[in-house]
Amino acid sequence: MAGADDKTLPVVTTENREGSGPFLIVCEHASNHFPPAFGTLGLDAETRAAHIAWDPGALGLARRLAKALDAPLVAAGISRLIYDLNRPPHADSAMAAKSEVFDVPGNAGLTREARQRRTELVYLPFHAALHAEITRHLTMGRLPVIVTIHSFTPVYFGKKREVELGIIHDADPTFAKAVLAEAQALTGLVCRLNEPYSAADGVTHTLRLQATPYGLHHVMLELRNDLLADDLAIASIADGLAPVLTAALARIGANDRKASA
Amino acid sequence: MAGADDKTLPVVTTENREGSGPFLIVCEHASNHFPPAFGTLGLDAETRAAHIAWDPGALGLARRLAKALDAPLVAAGISRLIYDLNRPPHADSAMAAKSEVFDVPGNAGLTREARQRRTELVYLPFHAALHAEITRHLTMGRLPVIVTIHSFTPVYFGKKREVELGIIHDADPTFAKAVLAEAQALTGLVCRLNEPYSAADGVTHTLRLQATPYGLHHVMLELRNDLLADDLAIASIADGLAPVLTAALARIGANDRKASA
Repeated sequence: MAGADDKTLPVVTTENREGSGPFLIVCEHASNHFPPAFGTLGLDAETRAAHIAWDPGALGLARRLAKALDAPLVAAGISRLIYDLNRPPHADSAMAAKSEVFDVPGNAGLTREARQRRTELVYLPFHAALHAEITRHLTMGRLPVIVTIHSFTPVYFGKKREVELGIIHDADPTFAKAVLAEAQALTGLVCRLNEPYSAADGVTHTLRLQATPYGLHHVMLELRNDLLADDLAIASIADGLAPVLTAALARIGANDRKASA
Repeated sequence: MAGADDKTLPVVTTENREGSGPFLIVCEHASNHFPPAFGTLGLDAETRAAHIAWDPGALGLARRLAKALDAPLVAAGISRLIYDLNRPPHADSAMAAKSEVFDVPGNAGLTREARQRRTELVYLPFHAALHAEITRHLTMGRLPVIVTIHSFTPVYFGKKREVELGIIHDADPTFAKAVLAEAQALTGLVCRLNEPYSAADGVTHTLRLQATPYGLHHVMLELRNDLLADDLAIASIADGLAPVLTAALARIGANDRKASA
């Protein structure tokens, strides 16, 4: 089933594993890489660089946050159009044939076998790596706080989005609400809870699969990508958000939360 | 970290993969095998055969149910005292130093490295195999109903248990309640919901990790192990429970539930 180069697929990398802070950073849409094993899905270079293929700026933000917070970072290395790691295998949006206004020819009419192959080669190894990283913390007696980093397009279906920082949670809103309060207090960003979308839209799959079953505090941060246009902008946003996350953890009294179950 | 024979550890086997019924059967405590990589934890042969080391009769019941229901079966091949696959890695009960009235010397004062090794060698591969099996169904357009099979001791801490069939659920009680109704109608067993323990006791970890994130119907069946004393008894219980599960699925109108998200 797997081709010769499948073993070297850059599905996932874990950086800063030695980080000993309370957070674990995740970036599912870090890359717009289309490895030869899957081809370009019939998309031209411009479309493969657009926001439908990845979350522009998210990896840079995630890396700088990981450094500032002394946190491990688990990041994907493959375009979300090949497999959207924040979606379950039975969701059409896991391998979207249409994303916003763009058709994705290579995802039209996928066979079960093709869906199965992408699930086995991309989804399962990514989530296994994240699962292993989380359990490594648990066996060390730590309950890591899971922070997933995303970016969204300022204009969607032709409509401008006002929100600059979306703060989204899965079942437990505790940490997300603390992040909202601190972000409003400490940054000048337009901050909203569960915007531009929420768990009800199916966008919290990673948190639901990896954080909620272990009762881990979590938040999904969505930055409007025009705020992440270059390295300087990314650094500025990261340097603003790192203290927000630390203060939010202190606010809920969980900054030295130990694992016991 | 892994020893020479770790690669051949019989952590998990998947049987009847070609089964095309609506159920997926799981048996976390199927075996009382203590592979050389972990030793006997200082326990004599009699204790290693007792209910603290495994769920006696559960594998036989799971296999006969899998056959009757044309269902795949994912079963563990290692004693629960080495790693209890129905517990998260930070739970003391994952590698219990004391189980009911029995001390487990080889689990006393485990180092983080030892806990980590067992997590990597037993917990992660078992749950990865189950995850792969579930996603295989999802990509085929099926939402499998997850049924975990357990047995419990008739006498616990010296107290006799009256319940014969415990029907336990994680977050969503829908299917479990239907199973209770059908079991009461179709069998002569003393049936109870969330006895002899429930999700609040931390016993639904597998369901919480594998079924709930995908919104899958699920139930944990706990049989009193004196009802599973030999092959004939096991066959009788299985032949009684298979139609209960099928009727319960029909009762909730989910017997041809298709995957879409």
